[in-house]
Amino acid sequence: MLSTKHIGDQANTALVAAAEAAQTAYRKALENHSPQQLAAVAMDGADGTPTMLIDVLVEEAVIDAATAAGVNVLSEERGWIDIGSAVSLVIDPVDGSANAAAGVPLSCFSAAVAVDGEFTEAMTVWLHTGERWWAAAGRPAFGTSGCRSAKAAAVSVLRPHPRNWDAWSRVARSATRIRILSCSTLDAAFVATGAVDAFVDAGSDTHRLMDIAAATVLVSAAGGAVVDAYGRPIVFDTDLTRRWSGVVAATAELADELCALIRG
Amino acid sequence: MLSTKHIGDQANTALVAAAEAAQTAYRKALENHSPQQLAAVAMDGADGTPTMLIDVLVEEAVIDAATAAGVNVLSEERGWIDIGSAVSLVIDPVDGSANAAAGVPLSCFSAAVAVDGEFTEAMTVWLHTGERWWAAAGRPAFGTSGCRSAKAAAVSVLRPHPRNWDAWSRVARSATRIRILSCSTLDAAFVATGAVDAFVDAGSDTHRLMDIAAATVLVSAAGGAVVDAYGRPIVFDTDLTRRWSGVVAATAELADELCALIRG
Repeated sequence: MLSTKHIGDQANTALVAAAEAAQTAYRKALENHSPQQLAAVAMDGADGTPTMLIDVLVEEAVIDAATAAGVNVLSEERGWIDIGSAVSLVIDPVDGSANAAAGVPLSCFSAAVAVDGEFTEAMTVWLHTGERWWAAAGRPAFGTSGCRSAKAAAVSVLRPHPRNWDAWSRVARSATRIRILSCSTLDAAFVATGAVDAFVDAGSDTHRLMDIAAATVLVSAAGGAVVDAYGRPIVFDTDLTRRWSGVVAATAELADELCALIRG
Repeated sequence: MLSTKHIGDQANTALVAAAEAAQTAYRKALENHSPQQLAAVAMDGADGTPTMLIDVLVEEAVIDAATAAGVNVLSEERGWIDIGSAVSLVIDPVDGSANAAAGVPLSCFSAAVAVDGEFTEAMTVWLHTGERWWAAAGRPAFGTSGCRSAKAAAVSVLRPHPRNWDAWSRVARSATRIRILSCSTLDAAFVATGAVDAFVDAGSDTHRLMDIAAATVLVSAAGGAVVDAYGRPIVFDTDLTRRWSGVVAATAELADELCALIRG
């Protein structure tokens, strides 16, 4: 875990400002609204999926903080906000909204910084505890478990859907242990620190860019691999209808094996 | 969440002393040992399963504190320690040992107080954050979601095993959302607070008494139901070879439906 103080002189100031705004807004939302209110569908997001009130409340605060700090923002609900900067934040204001709204304290603010379209750094903040994971591209940080095979791996998975039940089952039955925490960015942080060996969307194409953008920086800096199960590049793109089946693994070998399991 | 202060004048003093000893020992264990050391098998427990170093370290501290406070202890690894008191603590020193050892911060101290064989109160403590859930039998506390059907339920499940894959799949495909947090007592606390609708061992008979003893008090006080999928009574018993498939649900109707799904 990195404290704010620790990363204060290294991290992009807009990234830190957005993270702090998210945490304050999350706490206020939980104080002032019931679970039913927080989970109510407030609007349809720019990514085409229904948006809960908790997402709206935190996103507003995050966008205000980031644009005030002079950067563009690509965010889940409001989409692409271009203020003409070379720097953009790809933000999931509340990853794990369903957890957060219900009262399961597993949800994160997560963002990656893109400079001229290249991811340069990222930060994930566990909203319940304030713990933060930050890394810069190309600078080693954390350290994955080094696990190389599914048979030996503790794998976190997105929950199954009817459309990917078979692929999901192949992963679940191959791994030594599975978890479903329902918070992709927290799962990715745990891959970076070596607490879990891999995290996958087992072919449901649920992941949007903001669900896995931070992982591409954090887990790569930790020596792991972040790929799409179907080989699509995970790159900065303002088209929020794009989806991926992210595979975040301790090693490239484990990522390859999990991709093969998902593809069947 | 109840602070220590809040429950200090109500809870059994041995229960509070054991909880505090567990938290101190957990923090020390994480400071002084690597994940590999914490996960290493230190002995075979009284329940017949291999015991990790982290279990041993925390259990020693908990047993010392509880017996010093004058109560008998039934614990996962050392078994039944009878000092001739009418009061016994049924303790899981570290529920979610695999999480705790690996660095996934989802593990709990959990204990129920039995007086002359009847459960009278219970407490679960999230070791990473210090949050505590305490209740006394027969006194309303917390409040479940009130959910009455699997189709509408967010259900936490123990991870699947080959021996219960079919029953597990029936539950997973019937619920609106599933999670696998790998910490039964935290899951039960979330049922008590209404954050999740149910938590089940889908017929794998993994649960020992200490995995579900606290739930019988906490979730009942919250208006929910705690039963075994096969109808076996969940009662105080010092035989640690006994196993259950616990079903912890927001309502008796939901518990019944989940039991039927598990039995197939």
